[in-house]
Amino acid sequence: MAGVYTPPVQTLIDELGRLPGVGPKSAQRIAFHLLKLPAADVERLASAIHEAKERVRFCERCFNVAEATLCPICADDRRDGTILCVVEESRDIVALERTGEFRGRYHVLLGCMNPLEGIGPEHLKIRELVDRLRGEPVEEIVICTNPNTEGEVTAMYLARLLTPLGLRVTRLASGLPVGGDLEYADELTLGRAFEGRRAVES
Amino acid sequence: MAGVYTPPVQTLIDELGRLPGVGPKSAQRIAFHLLKLPAADVERLASAIHEAKERVRFCERCFNVAEATLCPICADDRRDGTILCVVEESRDIVALERTGEFRGRYHVLLGCMNPLEGIGPEHLKIRELVDRLRGEPVEEIVICTNPNTEGEVTAMYLARLLTPLGLRVTRLASGLPVGGDLEYADELTLGRAFEGRRAVES
Repeated sequence: MAGVYTPPVQTLIDELGRLPGVGPKSAQRIAFHLLKLPAADVERLASAIHEAKERVRFCERCFNVAEATLCPICADDRRDGTILCVVEESRDIVALERTGEFRGRYHVLLGCMNPLEGIGPEHLKIRELVDRLRGEPVEEIVICTNPNTEGEVTAMYLARLLTPLGLRVTRLASGLPVGGDLEYADELTLGRAFEGRRAVES
Repeated sequence: MAGVYTPPVQTLIDELGRLPGVGPKSAQRIAFHLLKLPAADVERLASAIHEAKERVRFCERCFNVAEATLCPICADDRRDGTILCVVEESRDIVALERTGEFRGRYHVLLGCMNPLEGIGPEHLKIRELVDRLRGEPVEEIVICTNPNTEGEVTAMYLARLLTPLGLRVTRLASGLPVGGDLEYADELTLGRAFEGRRAVES
């Protein structure tokens, strides 16, 4: 395909194709969409990218996205400092905040361990987590990595690292999604749900 | 979710979510990817968008993407001016050029008719196509819109519009994809393939 599109179009397609989840076909589709769009709309996208890149940084304490040294959660004195949720990404904080269940603080790893892609604990904000534990009154760490292979590997590593420090280390429960159908649950999820079964309160 | 992310992040997610094929989840994923990326890499994407938007325009004759008044195909005197492929988008030209079968010229509609979304013939470059026919020695028009509902509606409209002008109007053949498996073909494709069956040359 090289040389078929004029160079600025090909460059745009190539750059879009580097984005996560954007394959060559979608990159083409997005590129031509941008070319057809009014210049003002494209300018809005470009400046949103600029603006975010310029104004947004990572919280110095928990590595959540922030516009100041600390993110709004770290800057909020009313949050409970004794319990810490460890998540992979900032977007997981948004999901947890939506539940309204948690009033503690967070720590963002900025990824998860992935031996196949050569991402080890040293590439994540794990040392920074251990450093925090020295200065903060944390009693419980809830590991909230994703319930997939990489997330489990990361959770296992963290549990082994943190338990000897005398903390309570917990993990989010796995099981049937609320509103789901038992019939359609995969056997792994169903197995986990069985393993984690609880006495019915009456 | 409003107000959960800091405004520059939310704006970026919203703008990315407007792109075709990018849902709210992928918009979030791409936004956080961009935030974690080195500034130079993000700059490359932003300037690719700028560059393409600045340098690329549509060919005045056929509405293919171009860096000059005419696209490379329209500017090439060796192309056969008696046969014209009508396509929906520039990317379809790239696909047809790759076959190496066609040495004629093109006309890009910049979309297809979609009654449900209110896109009628007046939103496409159809008037411009008819105008071209007055000044150019076109004898055959090959309608190369996509073999889906919108493409078929557009093809039908064009056929009715152009046939009375005394041109030969043809349509790309529908049928089984080469290398495909008869067993897995959907009934519509198989029906078309049957309808368009040919005598075997021996």
